[in-house]
Amino acid sequence: MTERFNQPMSGNAMPRFAGTATMFRLPTPSELVGVDVAITGVPLDIGTSNRAGTRYGPRQIRSESVLVRPYSMATGGAPFDSFQVVDGGDVAINPYSLEKSLGLIEAHYARLAAARVLPISLGGDHTITLPILRALMKRHGPLALVHVDAHADTNDVMSGERYTHGTIFRRALEEGVVDARRMVQIGLRATGYSANDFDWARSRGVHVIQAEDLWYKSAAPAMAEVRERIGTAAPTYLSFDIDGLDPSVAPGTGTPEPGGLTASQGLEIIRGCFGLKLVGCDLVEVSPPYDVTGNTALLAANLVFEMLCSLPGCRRR
Amino acid sequence: MTERFNQPMSGNAMPRFAGTATMFRLPTPSELVGVDVAITGVPLDIGTSNRAGTRYGPRQIRSESVLVRPYSMATGGAPFDSFQVVDGGDVAINPYSLEKSLGLIEAHYARLAAARVLPISLGGDHTITLPILRALMKRHGPLALVHVDAHADTNDVMSGERYTHGTIFRRALEEGVVDARRMVQIGLRATGYSANDFDWARSRGVHVIQAEDLWYKSAAPAMAEVRERIGTAAPTYLSFDIDGLDPSVAPGTGTPEPGGLTASQGLEIIRGCFGLKLVGCDLVEVSPPYDVTGNTALLAANLVFEMLCSLPGCRRR
Amino acid sequence: MTERFNQPMSGNAMPRFAGTATMFRLPTPSELVGVDVAITGVPLDIGTSNRAGTRYGPRQIRSESVLVRPYSMATGGAPFDSFQVVDGGDVAINPYSLEKSLGLIEAHYARLAAARVLPISLGGDHTITLPILRALMKRHGPLALVHVDAHADTNDVMSGERYTHGTIFRRALEEGVVDARRMVQIGLRATGYSANDFDWARSRGVHVIQAEDLWYKSAAPAMAEVRERIGTAAPTYLSFDIDGLDPSVAPGTGTPEPGGLTASQGLEIIRGCFGLKLVGCDLVEVSPPYDVTGNTALLAANLVFEMLCSLPGCRRR
Amino acid sequence: MTERFNQPMSGNAMPRFAGTATMFRLPTPSELVGVDVAITGVPLDIGTSNRAGTRYGPRQIRSESVLVRPYSMATGGAPFDSFQVVDGGDVAINPYSLEKSLGLIEAHYARLAAARVLPISLGGDHTITLPILRALMKRHGPLALVHVDAHADTNDVMSGERYTHGTIFRRALEEGVVDARRMVQIGLRATGYSANDFDWARSRGVHVIQAEDLWYKSAAPAMAEVRERIGTAAPTYLSFDIDGLDPSVAPGTGTPEPGGLTASQGLEIIRGCFGLKLVGCDLVEVSPPYDVTGNTALLAANLVFEMLCSLPGCRRR
Amino acid sequence: MTERFNQPMSGNAMPRFAGTATMFRLPTPSELVGVDVAITGVPLDIGTSNRAGTRYGPRQIRSESVLVRPYSMATGGAPFDSFQVVDGGDVAINPYSLEKSLGLIEAHYARLAAARVLPISLGGDHTITLPILRALMKRHGPLALVHVDAHADTNDVMSGERYTHGTIFRRALEEGVVDARRMVQIGLRATGYSANDFDWARSRGVHVIQAEDLWYKSAAPAMAEVRERIGTAAPTYLSFDIDGLDPSVAPGTGTPEPGGLTASQGLEIIRGCFGLKLVGCDLVEVSPPYDVTGNTALLAANLVFEMLCSLPGCRRR
Amino acid sequence: MTERFNQPMSGNAMPRFAGTATMFRLPTPSELVGVDVAITGVPLDIGTSNRAGTRYGPRQIRSESVLVRPYSMATGGAPFDSFQVVDGGDVAINPYSLEKSLGLIEAHYARLAAARVLPISLGGDHTITLPILRALMKRHGPLALVHVDAHADTNDVMSGERYTHGTIFRRALEEGVVDARRMVQIGLRATGYSANDFDWARSRGVHVIQAEDLWYKSAAPAMAEVRERIGTAAPTYLSFDIDGLDPSVAPGTGTPEPGGLTASQGLEIIRGCFGLKLVGCDLVEVSPPYDVTGNTALLAANLVFEMLCSLPGCRRR
Repeated sequence: MTERFNQPMSGNAMPRFAGTATMFRLPTPSELVGVDVAITGVPLDIGTSNRAGTRYGPRQIRSESVLVRPYSMATGGAPFDSFQVVDGGDVAINPYSLEKSLGLIEAHYARLAAARVLPISLGGDHTITLPILRALMKRHGPLALVHVDAHADTNDVMSGERYTHGTIFRRALEEGVVDARRMVQIGLRATGYSANDFDWARSRGVHVIQAEDLWYKSAAPAMAEVRERIGTAAPTYLSFDIDGLDPSVAPGTGTPEPGGLTASQGLEIIRGCFGLKLVGCDLVEVSPPYDVTGNTALLAANLVFEMLCSLPGCRRR
Repeated sequence: MTERFNQPMSGNAMPRFAGTATMFRLPTPSELVGVDVAITGVPLDIGTSNRAGTRYGPRQIRSESVLVRPYSMATGGAPFDSFQVVDGGDVAINPYSLEKSLGLIEAHYARLAAARVLPISLGGDHTITLPILRALMKRHGPLALVHVDAHADTNDVMSGERYTHGTIFRRALEEGVVDARRMVQIGLRATGYSANDFDWARSRGVHVIQAEDLWYKSAAPAMAEVRERIGTAAPTYLSFDIDGLDPSVAPGTGTPEPGGLTASQGLEIIRGCFGLKLVGCDLVEVSPPYDVTGNTALLAANLVFEMLCSLPGCRRR
Repeated sequence: MTERFNQPMSGNAMPRFAGTATMFRLPTPSELVGVDVAITGVPLDIGTSNRAGTRYGPRQIRSESVLVRPYSMATGGAPFDSFQVVDGGDVAINPYSLEKSLGLIEAHYARLAAARVLPISLGGDHTITLPILRALMKRHGPLALVHVDAHADTNDVMSGERYTHGTIFRRALEEGVVDARRMVQIGLRATGYSANDFDWARSRGVHVIQAEDLWYKSAAPAMAEVRERIGTAAPTYLSFDIDGLDPSVAPGTGTPEPGGLTASQGLEIIRGCFGLKLVGCDLVEVSPPYDVTGNTALLAANLVFEMLCSLPGCRRR
Repeated sequence: MTERFNQPMSGNAMPRFAGTATMFRLPTPSELVGVDVAITGVPLDIGTSNRAGTRYGPRQIRSESVLVRPYSMATGGAPFDSFQVVDGGDVAINPYSLEKSLGLIEAHYARLAAARVLPISLGGDHTITLPILRALMKRHGPLALVHVDAHADTNDVMSGERYTHGTIFRRALEEGVVDARRMVQIGLRATGYSANDFDWARSRGVHVIQAEDLWYKSAAPAMAEVRERIGTAAPTYLSFDIDGLDPSVAPGTGTPEPGGLTASQGLEIIRGCFGLKLVGCDLVEVSPPYDVTGNTALLAANLVFEMLCSLPGCRRR
Repeated sequence: MTERFNQPMSGNAMPRFAGTATMFRLPTPSELVGVDVAITGVPLDIGTSNRAGTRYGPRQIRSESVLVRPYSMATGGAPFDSFQVVDGGDVAINPYSLEKSLGLIEAHYARLAAARVLPISLGGDHTITLPILRALMKRHGPLALVHVDAHADTNDVMSGERYTHGTIFRRALEEGVVDARRMVQIGLRATGYSANDFDWARSRGVHVIQAEDLWYKSAAPAMAEVRERIGTAAPTYLSFDIDGLDPSVAPGTGTPEPGGLTASQGLEIIRGCFGLKLVGCDLVEVSPPYDVTGNTALLAANLVFEMLCSLPGCRRR
Repeated sequence: MTERFNQPMSGNAMPRFAGTATMFRLPTPSELVGVDVAITGVPLDIGTSNRAGTRYGPRQIRSESVLVRPYSMATGGAPFDSFQVVDGGDVAINPYSLEKSLGLIEAHYARLAAARVLPISLGGDHTITLPILRALMKRHGPLALVHVDAHADTNDVMSGERYTHGTIFRRALEEGVVDARRMVQIGLRATGYSANDFDWARSRGVHVIQAEDLWYKSAAPAMAEVRERIGTAAPTYLSFDIDGLDPSVAPGTGTPEPGGLTASQGLEIIRGCFGLKLVGCDLVEVSPPYDVTGNTALLAANLVFEMLCSLPGCRRR
C-alpha cells in the first residue's frame, strides 16, 4: 500500500535540517495526474489590516514541516498510506493588487477542482479563502463551513473595501458560496466594532461557538455537535485561522487576541472533522516576522497534517 | 450617547498601523476638564530587582493598543459609550532617583484625584502602585485591594531598601493605605525567601489565592467570593502585575514564575471585578525588551480595556 | 529666536523613554497655519516586492527619534531655531489598494503644497515617492532629484504592474515630474535583471554614482559635483532609500544588498545637499520587523534630522 | 540547621543580575567531600536530529536560575535546609565525537556515584541520559524510570546510528539498565515513524501516559498511580525532557510538538515523585538559540529546583 | 544563448517570497547530465568548537538567495548566460558522526568530480572543506587555495581530535592536498592559542594577509598579487569562511572576531579571483540561529553569486 | 613564566561553551593577594537616560569572553604571560539607589587600590566611571584620561540630577579628579542639547577628536598625538564607552549614534594606549537586551583583552 503513494523523505535518508524544504518533504510534481491532495501555498498579505508578514507563511510552514512524521500517534491517522499527497507549490499572486490576486487564486483553484484534486492551502492572510471557496462552490455547490478564528470576518467593508481579510465571510454568505445553516464559527472573542459583531452571521443561521464557551475543557463535545449539524453528506470546507488559538500557543500572527483556544483544542477541532465530507481546508494568517522561534509555523504544519488525517477515507492504523 | 464621549479612532479612518500611537487611539488633552478616566503611563524601572526594561512598558502598550476595538464581545462592555476616557500621558518620573520618583508620582495622582479623574495606570515596575495608593487613600480613605501577582510583594526590605517593587504592599499595609480585611492576592506561587513569605499578609487578614488553587479551572467562582468579601461599597483598587499570568501567556516581564494564571483567568478576574466600587486600576511590569513579538503588551492593552469595562457604571450592550 | 518655534520636548522635562512618541517629540497640530516643515508618515507597504513590514516604518522611526537632540554637532545645524517644524501625522492610505493609496497620497501632499509646507516624509515603501513628486511638481515644476538607493527603481513593470516600489523613477522620468539632467542616483549596486539595468536612466541623462565609486572614501567630493550639476536654483527633492546604506548599517529593510554606503557617507550625502534648493525629502524602506534593535529606525531619525539641517535657510550655530 | 549547608547567595547581598551565574548561586567546589547533590551540566548537542543548540543549555539555565529562591511556596520544600547542594560544573564532553562523549559522561558519573553524590543533570540533548543511567545502574542495579517527553526515544537506529537522542531508551531497556516494569513515559504525542512507535516499550511492560490522557486536568492522580507502580523502595531516575511540555510553555527546544503538558502539570509530575527513591534526575533539551526571552531556561531552573524538593529526605517547612 | 541554460525563476513570474526556495530559484535536477556547476549544501555542524547552528546554513542561504538577480552590476558577470547551473541539493551527512560524515562528503564530491561538475558548496562548518579538497585533488592534483577566514584553521588537534573546523588546513597541507606555495590566507586576526598561530602555515610557504593589512583600503591590489602568485594555470579552490568578514557585516556565524573585512572587500576578493583557474568554491560557517534578520545568509548568497561570476569562462555583459 | 600566572582554561580542556563563564575563563579568587589585574563587573543601569539593560553587561561580556584566546595576533600581546589576572567578580551595587551605589563602587575600588590591584571594569552604565576615578585619584593623584565615546558626558545636570551617565566627566573635571590638559575625548558626534556641547570641556583644555575627524582612515596617527600629549609618566585612565563605536559594530547599547568609529579604529585606539602609564580601564554601556546575537558583548570582551595587552609591562611575543 505504502508504495503506491508518495512518502515524506525520511529523516534517516536525509537529516531533517537538510534537503529542499518542501511541505512534509513531499515531491513537487509539475503535473497533477493521479494527485489526490495538493498542499498549496498562497503567499498573500495585502488583505491585512494590522501587522504584515503572511507572505512568508507558506515558506516558513514548509521549513518547519520537515519535523512532522507520517503517522498520528493519537488517532493512528495514516494519510500517506491513504492518498497521493503532493506539495502543490504556490499560487503566483500579484503582490501589488489584491483584486487581481483574488482572480489569480480563484483561477488556480478552479484548475485544481477540474483535476479533482483536494486542496489544502497555506496562507497567506484570510482573504485567500474567498476565492478558494468560490472555486470549490462551482464544483460542489454551496459549502458547509467549519471556521476557526478569533474574528468573525463578517465586516461589511474595511477602509471602504469589500474584499479584505475581515470581510470575506460576509461576502461568502452574501454570494451563497457558503450555506449559513451549515456554517460554524469557533473561537470568536475579544473586542468588536460593535457589541453585536457576531450577530450578523448568527441572524443568518450560522452557529457561533465563542472562545469562552470552550475555556478549561475539551472541544470534543462541541465537535460532536458540529458533525451533527453539518452531517456526513454535505461538502464541507475547513478554514483554520491560526489566531483562533491563543497567542501563547501561536504568537506568530498579525491580529492576536487573548483568551483563545489551546493547541490541544485546535487538534481536537480538526480531529473532530473526521466524518465530515471535507472537500478542502486551509490554514491561514501565520506571520513569520512575529514567529521568532518558528514554533507557530511548526504548529501550523502539525495542524495541516491533522487535516490530512481528517480527510474522508484516511486510514487509521 | 456615543457622541458625548471620545471614541477610539477607527481602523477604517486611519489604518491601525498608522497615526500616533496613543492609548486606544484616544485623544491626549492637556486639560482634565470633563475627563472621567485618564489612562496614565508611569515609565519607572528603577525599583526592579531582576531584569530591567519596564520603562518602555507604557510606550509599547500604547503601540499595541491600537488593535483593541471599542466593545467587549464577551460581556457587551461599552466603556466609550459610558465614560470620557483619555490618554493621560506619562508621569515625568526622575529616571535617576527612586525616592524622588515616588514623590513625583504621588503628586501627579493627587492632581488626578483632585480633578475627580479615575486613574488607570500603565507601568512601569510595581513600585508605582504605592504612591498611587497613597494619593487615592487621601481622597477615598483606606482602600480595598485586588492584587494579581506571582509575588506577594510584602518583603520588609530588599538590598536594605524599604521602597522597591517587592516591598510595596508591606508598606501599604503598614501605612494603613490598604484595608487588610478587604485585600485579596491572586496568583502567588513559585519560590520564596522563606517558606512563609505569603503568611505575613495572611496574618493581617489578607486573603491569598495561590495560583495552584486555580489550576485547570475557571477563576469566576473565586471572584464571586472576592466580591462577597469586599462588598459593593468599599473603594477598591485593582493592581494587576502581568507576571501573575503564566510566562507562556506573558513572556515579556522581569521576574517570570512558572505555573501562573492563564489569559482567560486573567480576563475572568478583571471581569469579576464588575460590581466592585473600583476607584483605580493599574497594569504593571510589562518589560518590552523581553516582549519580542509585542504580544505581552497587546495582552496588557486588552486587560486594560477589560478594566474600563469593569468600572462602576460601564454600560453593557 | 528659539521661542518662536516648536522645540523638541527636552529629556530633562520628560525622560526620553516617556511621553507620546511623536517625531522628535514635536507637537502634532491639527492645523498647518504657520508651519514650515511637516514630517509626515506614509505607512505603505503594498508596493513591496520582497520582505514586508514598512507599514510600521513611521511608527518605529518616531519611537526612536526621541533620542535625537536639537543641534547637529558636526555642522552646527539648528533647524528648530530656523523653522516651524511639526509632526504632520500619517497619510491615511488604503491598506488594500495600491492604486487608491497613490491617489490619497498625492491629494495629501497637494494640500501640504497649497499650504506652502515643505514635506519630509517617512516611508513606507518607495512607491510613496511618485505621488509626492507629482504633487510637488504641480507647485514647483519639474524637479531636480538626489536619489540614494541600492536600486535604480527604473523597471518598466513588475509582475505586470506599472506602479510599484521598483518602477517609480521610470514613471517619474516618463511623466516629466523629474528633470533627468538634474537627477543623480547614488549607491546603486549588486545584481540586476539585466547587465544594463542602470543604463535606461543614464541614457536619459541621469548621473549614476554606483556604490563601488564611493568605497573606502568620503562622499563629500561627489556631493560637490552633485551640487555643481544641479545648481542652487533648481527645486530639488531628496529621496533616501535606507537600503542605499550597507545592510550592516541598516539591517532593517526589505531588499538589502551588500557593499553599500556607510553611515558616515549617508550623513555626508545629506549634509552635501545643503546649498541646494530642497523642496521636499523622504526617508523610505525602513522595515521594523527586520530592525530587531530599533537601530535602523534610529539611524533613519538621525538622517531625517540631517535633512532638516540641509533645508535652505537652516541656521548654523 | 541552615548553617550546615550551602545557601544560594541572597539577592539582597548581591543583586540577582550580578555575580557569577552559578546554578542557584551556589558554590562550585573542586572537591566532592561532603556533597549530597551535584547539579552538573552536560553541554552535548551532537546527538540531536533536528535543531541544534543544546550545548548552551547548562550555561543559560544557570544564568536564569539566579531568580529561584530557596523555598517552594506550594510544598514548603526546603532543599537547602536538607542537603549539601553544589554546582558541580560541566562534564568536559568531546564536541566532535558522540561516541567518546558517551564514555566521558559515564566516567564522570561513575566518579559521582563512587563519591555517593546524587546527580541532577542539565542537558544537553537527551543522549546524555544513557551514560548517566549506566553509571547509576552500576551502583544501584536496574533503575525505575519516570520519563517525561514528547517522544518515546525508543527508535532502534537513526541515520544508521544506535546512539542518538532518539534511541537511548531502547538501548537502556535492551541493556537492562532500566526495569521496564517500573518505567513510565509521560507526555508522548504528535507524529510517529509508524503508528505503533509507542508500542515497542509498551510490549515490554512500560507504562505510557500519552499527553492526550492529561489534557485539561491535573496530573496529580496519574502520579499517584506512578508511585503505586514503582513503589517506595526501587532506585528511581527522573528524566525530564523539556519538550514534554507544550511549546507555548517551553519554546526553546529542538523538536517541539504541539499539544503537550502545561507548566503546572510539569510541576505536578515532579512534585508527584516525592515519595519515590530518586537516585538521580535530569532536565534536558533546552536549546537557548530558540529561547529568545530566557524563559524556557528559567522554567528549567524552576523544574530542577522542584527536583531538589522531591529528593528523599527533603524537609518541608 | 540564454535559452540553453537554466535561468533563475523571475520575480515577475512568481513573487520572490513565493515558490520553493531553491538556490537562486534554479532547478534541482536528479541527474547531473549537462550540468556545469552544482551548488551543493553540506549541512554539517558537528565539527564546531563554539556556537552551533551551521546545519541550517544551506537552508537559510537558499531562502535568502531568492532576492539575487542574474547579472552583476559591478562587473557585468552573467553566469546564467555562461553555465548550466543547478541547485545540487544537500549531502546526506550523518548528524551523529563527524568521521562518517567526512567520508560521505568526500564520496559525494567524488561523484561530482567524476561527472565533471564544478562544485560550489554551502556550509555547514569549515570541516566540510577537507573532504571536498580531497575529492577535487584526486581529479586535479594538488590545489592552489584562496582561503578567506578570521582563523588559520591550522591547529594540530582540538579536544584531542585531528578533524575539526579548526584543524582542516593543517591536514590539507600535511596530506599534500593543497600546494602551500600557492595557498593564500586572507583576513586572519584577533587572538591565538599562541602568538605564532599563523606561522606554521607561513613556515611552509603559505602567504598570509592579515586583516590589519587591509584596513581602510581596497582589497583589489592584494588580489592582483594573489593572482600573480597562483598564476592562471593552477587548479584553484576558493574557501570563504563568512567569519573572514567583520561581525558587523556577517553577524550570523559561530566564532566571530572583531576587526574583520568589510563586505566590499569580500566582494573584491571574490571578484579578484576572476582569472584564476577555479575548480571549486565554498561559503561556510553561516549560522542561522545567530542571523536574526537573514542578512548574513543573504550576503552569503550574494558572495556565492560572485563566485559564479568569477568562474573561468563566465561572460561579462 | 607562564606557570606563574593564571591561564585561561583552554578550549581543549573544556569546550568553550561549557564550564562556568568567568571572564576569559580565569579564576575568581576570594582574596586579592598577588593579583595584578582584577576584571571587575559593575552591573549598574540606574544612571541611564534612554534604553535600560546595562545591568546585564558584565554577565554577557563574561559569557562571550570564553572565545577569546590568550595572545593578540596583531601585536603579540601576551597578558597572561605578564600579569596575574583574575575575574574580580561584581560590585554589589544597590539596584534601587544611584547615590548609594556610587558610594559602594568607590569603596570597592578603594579596596582594590589599597591592594595595588589594577582594575579593568565591565559596565554597567557610564556613571560607574566617576567613583572609580575618585578611588584611583586618591592613590595616583589627578589622572590623565583617554575617553572614547559618542557623547561628551559633560552635561551639568540631567532631570535635575548631578550624577548620571551624561554628567560624570563634568563632575570629574570640576572635582579635579581628571587633569583636563591630559584628557582626550575620541568619537564624539551626532546631536547635542546645544551646538557647543563639546566646548565646555574644550574650554578647559580637553582635546576633542570628533568621530568625523577619523572617518575613512586609521586612528593610529591620532593616537600618536594622544601619547605625545599625555606623556609616558602620567597615571592614565582609559574609559571606553562602547557607543563610541558605530551602531553597526556595537548595536547592543543604550544611546547609539550614527557615524561612529569602526571596530578596527576601536582596536587601534586601545593598542595606541600602549606606552601610556595606564592605571585603570573600563568598558561600559553594553546593553544585552539590545545585543541579540551576543556580538556586542563579544566585541567588548576583545576590547578588554586589548586593554590587558596595553597595560604597562605587557610582554609582546
